[in-house]
Amino acid sequence: MIQAIRIDLNSDLGESFGAYTLGLDEEVIPHLTSANIACGFHGGDPGVMRKTVAIAKRYGVEVGAHPGFPDLMGFGRRNIDATLEEIQDYVVYQLGALQAFAQAAGLKLQHVKPHGALYNMAVANSKIWDAIAGAVVKANREVILVVLASSNRNILVEIGKRHGIRVAFEAFPDRAYKSDGSLAPRKEKGAVIHDHEVVARRALKMALEGKVIATDGAEIDLRADTLCVHGDNPAAVPDGQKNPREPQGLRGGSHRAEKLPLAGC
Amino acid sequence: MIQAIRIDLNSDLGESFGAYTLGLDEEVIPHLTSANIACGFHGGDPGVMRKTVAIAKRYGVEVGAHPGFPDLMGFGRRNIDATLEEIQDYVVYQLGALQAFAQAAGLKLQHVKPHGALYNMAVANSKIWDAIAGAVVKANREVILVVLASSNRNILVEIGKRHGIRVAFEAFPDRAYKSDGSLAPRKEKGAVIHDHEVVARRALKMALEGKVIATDGAEIDLRADTLCVHGDNPAAVPDGQKNPREPQGLRGGSHRAEKLPLAGC
Amino acid sequence: MIQAIRIDLNSDLGESFGAYTLGLDEEVIPHLTSANIACGFHGGDPGVMRKTVAIAKRYGVEVGAHPGFPDLMGFGRRNIDATLEEIQDYVVYQLGALQAFAQAAGLKLQHVKPHGALYNMAVANSKIWDAIAGAVVKANREVILVVLASSNRNILVEIGKRHGIRVAFEAFPDRAYKSDGSLAPRKEKGAVIHDHEVVARRALKMALEGKVIATDGAEIDLRADTLCVHGDNPAAVPDGQKNPREPQGLRGGSHRAEKLPLAGC
Amino acid sequence: MIQAIRIDLNSDLGESFGAYTLGLDEEVIPHLTSANIACGFHGGDPGVMRKTVAIAKRYGVEVGAHPGFPDLMGFGRRNIDATLEEIQDYVVYQLGALQAFAQAAGLKLQHVKPHGALYNMAVANSKIWDAIAGAVVKANREVILVVLASSNRNILVEIGKRHGIRVAFEAFPDRAYKSDGSLAPRKEKGAVIHDHEVVARRALKMALEGKVIATDGAEIDLRADTLCVHGDNPAAVPDGQKNPREPQGLRGGSHRAEKLPLAGC
Repeated sequence: MIQAIRIDLNSDLGESFGAYTLGLDEEVIPHLTSANIACGFHGGDPGVMRKTVAIAKRYGVEVGAHPGFPDLMGFGRRNIDATLEEIQDYVVYQLGALQAFAQAAGLKLQHVKPHGALYNMAVANSKIWDAIAGAVVKANREVILVVLASSNRNILVEIGKRHGIRVAFEAFPDRAYKSDGSLAPRKEKGAVIHDHEVVARRALKMALEGKVIATDGAEIDLRADTLCVHGDNPAAVPDGQKNPREPQGLRGGSHRAEKLPLAGC
Repeated sequence: MIQAIRIDLNSDLGESFGAYTLGLDEEVIPHLTSANIACGFHGGDPGVMRKTVAIAKRYGVEVGAHPGFPDLMGFGRRNIDATLEEIQDYVVYQLGALQAFAQAAGLKLQHVKPHGALYNMAVANSKIWDAIAGAVVKANREVILVVLASSNRNILVEIGKRHGIRVAFEAFPDRAYKSDGSLAPRKEKGAVIHDHEVVARRALKMALEGKVIATDGAEIDLRADTLCVHGDNPAAVPDGQKNPREPQGLRGGSHRAEKLPLAGC
Repeated sequence: MIQAIRIDLNSDLGESFGAYTLGLDEEVIPHLTSANIACGFHGGDPGVMRKTVAIAKRYGVEVGAHPGFPDLMGFGRRNIDATLEEIQDYVVYQLGALQAFAQAAGLKLQHVKPHGALYNMAVANSKIWDAIAGAVVKANREVILVVLASSNRNILVEIGKRHGIRVAFEAFPDRAYKSDGSLAPRKEKGAVIHDHEVVARRALKMALEGKVIATDGAEIDLRADTLCVHGDNPAAVPDGQKNPREPQGLRGGSHRAEKLPLAGC
Repeated sequence: MIQAIRIDLNSDLGESFGAYTLGLDEEVIPHLTSANIACGFHGGDPGVMRKTVAIAKRYGVEVGAHPGFPDLMGFGRRNIDATLEEIQDYVVYQLGALQAFAQAAGLKLQHVKPHGALYNMAVANSKIWDAIAGAVVKANREVILVVLASSNRNILVEIGKRHGIRVAFEAFPDRAYKSDGSLAPRKEKGAVIHDHEVVARRALKMALEGKVIATDGAEIDLRADTLCVHGDNPAAVPDGQKNPREPQGLRGGSHRAEKLPLAGC
């Protein structure tokens, strides 16, 4: 008997800009349940945002804001020593801008997930998660904040409760984990997994068991509400066509029904 | 007996950026009923937007979006040969961004008024008004679109009706008008009036009689729902302190109560 | 007996930006004698400029500045109503920036050719050519200004003489010409020629005879010092591999020796 | 007998942008011998650069490049986690751009001094000084690199020697120093000295004795080739008019003759 696994699959989309195309949005989106759409600071522009929301709508994929630092030249991947207030303002701004395009398409914003350096800095400093949560409260408290599933789960649950917003935990099937639940830094060898089969197996284990094998061989808990698949790492995209025996349910696109689940409560 | 004149007074605010301060927002805002707040393209940044909304709230001034071209170096004052679709996307984006800051402050966006070259290009080409009206419909159809009161009033009323949005007409007390109801181009001598007394008189005539004296001496009709006062032209700011005999009601700040009125109906 | 045709072939390169890749620079450059390198305003960034200069050096291709309007979102393809002084400043700035990377690689800047809307606006208004020529004089009077070969040749020769700089005329083998020597506007059907064979034949006729067949069938004079090939229109790249019988000398890469020739004399 | 003290006085100028004016360039420049001119990344734009070079020329003040991070919104004051290669490219680019305006005005670039966060990051990590020195070598090895006079003088002298460029040491009369020769962080109370008299006294002591009193009362060595005066801190501008007994020579403007001196040799 085949058991259907239901888990949200999210990916970063809409990162093209002007004459520049980035990512394989049209190829990736059928596999997703949630799209993190760039908002013009690290990538994306108003036209790209409109088009990306339209594609998401066509495939029935939920839309979320993917705010980043105002660093187009660095694609939002460089830490910027911004204040918590600046970060909160940046998130409010970008969330609002994307929300208008969602509204224009008759959609509601489902979630917000910070991009690149902003995400990494938040992972390293929960005060930044707190500032971002505050932005969600200010701009739209219905929106779910997507955070990294890791060892400091309790802190994040507490931030969500304090602000009265929902928090969803995400895991990365194509990233190596340390035994403390943190992501192995990208510069470490093996930090990004390129083998499609391995990534698919890890995704299944995360979805079915809420566990992952860490770099030291230990099996650790990693309960996640959503798995992030990378459009720019082909191995990270579960591909039904190429692999028809792929376990049911991983291709969120076919089984998605429920919204990204509430976390912690 | 003193007759109270009630007319909306609007001005462009929040045009500072980063370390750069522009305009005398704090000095101007007590005289206003409506603030047109820059949205980050031609001026303004997320922090400036937050602070400007807060100032407007403090003084009970209605907030509106003041979207411009993405041309910070030219302060949005240079015509850019953008498509109607690009223009619509730019307005949706900026309107959404400002709306989030309004929401954060517990305010609703009252209006949208394009800035600089975008405004001038719309005045010269009503297809651009149409694209902007479409952006309002998409992002927030409750928002009032502020347009130039001039000879093509009927076209603008029709655009508002077709899109099902409200349109408000504005006039400029400190600008010279041609007898056809158009603004005298800025490069013409006398196009901007710097004499405080003259500006105040013209404002009164506009508010009381719906009329203005054109450059050729003719008195023309110019029914306006709102008068634009320029923070960077001190003569354009009616100043109650300096001129205590200033007619009641012109200082919108003291008499404001009703929203910017509906146009055309 | 095979006659060697010697003509400069130029193309726009280095238009990538940050995480965004645009164009097939590595594939196109072996076919060129002159590279027009974007300078960070409409495309290109400091790292891309350094790398593009290095590629050009590796292939012995001359480097030139390709300045555009500060409009990354529109890729410099939208007319901006800038003043002549602003345009001159933009060209000085970008020319200087690229020159530093050329200097860093031990190269001298050969030429400057404006990009996109700036080029088109100059073609339509020779005062802009004049402003750009003035920028060349100010920043580096050794640099050759590349202009469109067309009916107003005399005006451009005169501009070059007055400023004491060299002017080179370019033609576009993959673009249709009107019988008055102007380019057919891109929006007209057939304005861009996609058939490789046709483009190659036109390039040869331009190089050998200094002539082109206009859209109305007339053969018109079009003496050019350099032909522009488009990296983004594969038909515009003469390809020695695919077409071994291609006349010698058209592939500038193999026969290039002399500098882009002086114009007007 | 009055002894003339000859020391270079530098200040950051040309930081206006588009419609935004910042700093009191015209007021400050008569007091300077060296102007650090912003290059368009953290502040400044092509028109501002041209005008600032012209003002410097008018007053016989030497011009230098003041490159910063591409962070106009943060005015280049926020640390950005850029690679050494990116930093080097940014400096080459900006140095080249300013050099073209200097060339246009018939001037030679005297020096380069990084701005804001780039300067502070270099002070904290000499690999960044090394990358910047490499940029100088690449773009123009005649240019003097201005660095902070502090305890790691030997490292900086060595960097200059290795690259074969001149290094000049600067001190800040209006900043508090720790006894190890480092600047007291701006967030510490008293880090910036606002008392005009105190600043002038410190400047004199630096110029005459090469010493400064540190925050713990110790007198420390601080041999400087140039003193930085801040246009935005009025106390930092020595003012001959207000204080006629001010020792001769401090007002670089009246006594300047020699170039910013070579350091270390």
